[in-house]
Amino acid sequence: MQHDYQILQPGWIVTVNSDFEVLRDCAVVIEDNRIHSLTSIDEVRQLPCYARARVIDLPDHVLLPGLVNSHTHASMTLLRGIADDLPLMDWLSNHIWPAEARWVDAGFAADGFRLAAAEMIRSGTTCMNDMYFFPDEVARCAQQIGMRVVVGLIVLDFPSVWARNADEYLHKALAVHDEIRGYGLVDSALAPHAPYTVSDEPLRQIAMYSNELDLPVHIHLHETRAEVDEAQNKNGQRPLQRLDQLNLLNPSLIAVHMTELNEFEIERIAEAGVNVAHCPESNLKLASGICPLTTLLDKGVNVCLGTDGAASNNDLDMFGEMRTAALLAKGSSGDASACNARQAIEMATINGARALGMADRIGSIEIGKCADLIAINLAELNTQPVYDPVAQIVYAAASRQVSDVWIDGVAQLRNHEFCHLDANKIVTMAASWEKKIES
Amino acid sequence: MQHDYQILQPGWIVTVNSDFEVLRDCAVVIEDNRIHSLTSIDEVRQLPCYARARVIDLPDHVLLPGLVNSHTHASMTLLRGIADDLPLMDWLSNHIWPAEARWVDAGFAADGFRLAAAEMIRSGTTCMNDMYFFPDEVARCAQQIGMRVVVGLIVLDFPSVWARNADEYLHKALAVHDEIRGYGLVDSALAPHAPYTVSDEPLRQIAMYSNELDLPVHIHLHETRAEVDEAQNKNGQRPLQRLDQLNLLNPSLIAVHMTELNEFEIERIAEAGVNVAHCPESNLKLASGICPLTTLLDKGVNVCLGTDGAASNNDLDMFGEMRTAALLAKGSSGDASACNARQAIEMATINGARALGMADRIGSIEIGKCADLIAINLAELNTQPVYDPVAQIVYAAASRQVSDVWIDGVAQLRNHEFCHLDANKIVTMAASWEKKIES
Repeated sequence: MQHDYQILQPGWIVTVNSDFEVLRDCAVVIEDNRIHSLTSIDEVRQLPCYARARVIDLPDHVLLPGLVNSHTHASMTLLRGIADDLPLMDWLSNHIWPAEARWVDAGFAADGFRLAAAEMIRSGTTCMNDMYFFPDEVARCAQQIGMRVVVGLIVLDFPSVWARNADEYLHKALAVHDEIRGYGLVDSALAPHAPYTVSDEPLRQIAMYSNELDLPVHIHLHETRAEVDEAQNKNGQRPLQRLDQLNLLNPSLIAVHMTELNEFEIERIAEAGVNVAHCPESNLKLASGICPLTTLLDKGVNVCLGTDGAASNNDLDMFGEMRTAALLAKGSSGDASACNARQAIEMATINGARALGMADRIGSIEIGKCADLIAINLAELNTQPVYDPVAQIVYAAASRQVSDVWIDGVAQLRNHEFCHLDANKIVTMAASWEKKIES
Repeated sequence: MQHDYQILQPGWIVTVNSDFEVLRDCAVVIEDNRIHSLTSIDEVRQLPCYARARVIDLPDHVLLPGLVNSHTHASMTLLRGIADDLPLMDWLSNHIWPAEARWVDAGFAADGFRLAAAEMIRSGTTCMNDMYFFPDEVARCAQQIGMRVVVGLIVLDFPSVWARNADEYLHKALAVHDEIRGYGLVDSALAPHAPYTVSDEPLRQIAMYSNELDLPVHIHLHETRAEVDEAQNKNGQRPLQRLDQLNLLNPSLIAVHMTELNEFEIERIAEAGVNVAHCPESNLKLASGICPLTTLLDKGVNVCLGTDGAASNNDLDMFGEMRTAALLAKGSSGDASACNARQAIEMATINGARALGMADRIGSIEIGKCADLIAINLAELNTQPVYDPVAQIVYAAASRQVSDVWIDGVAQLRNHEFCHLDANKIVTMAASWEKKIES
């Protein structure tokens, strides 16, 4: 079989390998969907594949692993801006849940996912950890678009358009897991919505399936103090303690938000290897609380970053999350060295890959990994001069400077233009949902 | 004399008038440099000037008053990213001040200003309140570029490349004030750097000149708790108390940062009509503290927004400041309704104009005001659908969606392209400073 080669020649490569090496004058050779080699620009011309490779010069660009959005509800992008400046429970109960009850179906899930995927690709995200209804529909769209997705196999106690009760959610979860086995770009995670919406019995089954099928468990956890207080009043336990008894605190768990944590709990999740998905902009916007990022990082917890859904953020821009995470860590800890630029980039790449159990495939620019790569053009007014490309990415670059995106070796964005998606068509589709929903 | 007419036909006009009216299907008629009228799109065709006006259709766009950056050090943009992840005094003493001592001259001030002005125009800022050495040079560049600027007539106790002592700073301040009288786009403010760098006698003179010449006073104030504690140890007074005794607490004062404020001080500045320039991203990044925005707004203090210099931010993006201000207010107050989208936009426009004593000229889209206007294209993936253009501007729009900018009626950006500036040339100039400074 004939291999396909692409050779990228960027100004800088931020590898995000374990030494966080930043390479200059180096090329990345992509063979089919994999990173084949990293070679000095002088030597790359001597490679046998050079003559038939597509050579892509990116002299003003920094090449970075594709960003991993560790928590989102992609389809909810159709509800972006429907209600703002409201606290979590008011926003959910009086705006989001009624709108969802009225509008969500397979078509909504698919269209919302397409809008989200296009926004993410344009802003440098190549993999998302999603949680929503119709994960089967999302998986099909992802595979068709060429976006890498971990679909959340959602589980709730209460009925929705997707299932009537916990048993049916679990049944459908396993069916979707089976259905998508052959989808190269799609993995799945068990996704019990939250401790306050899923009771013990389904959580026990989820712990069992996670173990048997080696699946991550994706859950909203300790999002607000109110959630923790209410659980304590109801069950006499904080949610983390309850999950611990249900055997869910382990390296398969992706605990999202985690703003309300005491010292004991931080020790416990560090010891158990629980992954934390930090969503700083969503937490601020809904006044949910502030995740103790600095302490978590100090204790060695694997913290990754997520945008949350666009209805609570209101964008899907991981550059914004990196920057807000770094700024908020400094501001809330009173230490300007907290969460430095390197840590912010690691959270948005390799830590996300690790949380999803995919660190052997994505999250860094290393030989043998999938070619999920993005190029950021720093020759723009707002990123000049360049003393340090790493700081520039986190503290100055805008996501619109992402010029090129590859997912699994396939070019999705070239010089700011989509290779396959039609942005105008997607914008028109989103506008037509707005007309329908507002009417 | 023949008048020049431009007619803008945007999808929405966010007027930022006192009722914060949002108009649909309305046109803005610009006569020379002024807003001549606001007319329904149906009626605008019947205006006598219609036939010879340039008519600009902006169907997917929201028109907003140009953003007012109420605190910056434009020329320092050449030091963007030279040192990050450091606390204020380490960053200043060990990195910024040595670099400035080595490199700042009139050429640095001019080149840095050009880079900053171009970045600001591209991101929708039409007026900046600047503070730096060589305000004469900055004024000339601003006038030449067509950027509206309030130059800070800087005053310090200690010698710099600009002056040897407080007397000479003051002397030069008055000379620059006189020199720029005829510059249509440039105003000036007295700019004592900070209470810890300017002693009582020059501050007394500044209070006098401010009163006599009707000039704003632009000063860093209560930026960190350490600043306040050290002043108390040294003088037995908090800086605000000292400025009060020096007759500086009045509506001419633009107090920048103000992270460290007790209840009594908040009452006092509200009563005195002091303006606060809030720089949320700089404060977070340098871990300087958090300005009590919600309380200030509740007390009726006029709060405006600034980026601070790009060396501490690291960009000059007022969209980022609006968003961070809103998110941080919610997160730090625990109230998701704190600093809503309307308030964020007001801080970035009319409140800035008010602080600078220019609210009769700029800051809102009202008849008779100068045509400082920006158009934001919402037909992009990350701002669809549009349920509420006001929320969309603050919570979802990126500054790159600013497609058109007018300053004093002159188009500076049309459909994302500069009308007069050469961005490539400016990027090359900035890169050449990087090579020089790094060598």
